[in-house]
Amino acid sequence: MAEGAPMALAMEEARAAAAREEVPVGAVVTDARGAVLSRAGNEVEARHDPSAHAEMLALRAAAAARGRKWLEDCTLWVTLEPCPMCAQAASFFRVRRVVFGAYDPKGGGVEHGARVLSAPSCHHAPEVVGGVRESESAALLREFFLARRGGTGVSGG
Amino acid sequence: MAEGAPMALAMEEARAAAAREEVPVGAVVTDARGAVLSRAGNEVEARHDPSAHAEMLALRAAAAARGRKWLEDCTLWVTLEPCPMCAQAASFFRVRRVVFGAYDPKGGGVEHGARVLSAPSCHHAPEVVGGVRESESAALLREFFLARRGGTGVSGG
Repeated sequence: MAEGAPMALAMEEARAAAAREEVPVGAVVTDARGAVLSRAGNEVEARHDPSAHAEMLALRAAAAARGRKWLEDCTLWVTLEPCPMCAQAASFFRVRRVVFGAYDPKGGGVEHGARVLSAPSCHHAPEVVGGVRESESAALLREFFLARRGGTGVSGG
Repeated sequence: MAEGAPMALAMEEARAAAAREEVPVGAVVTDARGAVLSRAGNEVEARHDPSAHAEMLALRAAAAARGRKWLEDCTLWVTLEPCPMCAQAASFFRVRRVVFGAYDPKGGGVEHGARVLSAPSCHHAPEVVGGVRESESAALLREFFLARRGGTGVSGG
């Protein structure tokens, strides 16, 4: 599978989330061969669950699909830089790699804020690649917040 | 309800987790009047889900019980210092207060490591009280790891 394909799928999930009035963030988990194990969009509003970020749902679904808790050969693709919660979850699930789209200076926890994967106490730090289809992902978020809140922040992915 | 009562309940959940061969951490969510909204122990092994920490389960269950996503009047009681994932989740659920038992220098994310609630980008930082029934909680974790792994670390709560 081409490198860009899982991120295109994650973008589809983000667009579907926007259509449900959820913050438009999408995530996909692929295995070592590039096969898609899971895909999810934000479901915070629908579930009344602020922890139902796309990444959390995709990670849980991928592990559930395999019936084991670690995803050590897998890549997590997500349209926005993961927050501290999701970054730590990616570490706990032991994913090999995290590829994200837009950077999130306000809510991100990988390249910004708490930088949880860089903490000395982080026992498993996945490889991180940021900025993949960045402008497309950022534009979707910007449009969402401009239309609904008249605001500029992203946070919530 | 006396201050110590929810923590005693959390300890019960931690002991029940140990009996299921889960890392013994328990959590309880109470509302402003001290009524228990939810209680949970670690279910990482049973669910094949490294994100199934006691705090995550208790927070989700409390919000689900109310049918709304914020717990702004609530206290999260947990027997071990929350990890970065759970600390960030407590912030997202907007809990008023986090009360924890043992400090976790290896895996904690509140007073140690990424200190996510102290990051300038943390939009909602609950009040934090640590060390409540600390020695009891630490002893339970120590016994668990000594018996099962011959190790000393705690992490996983």
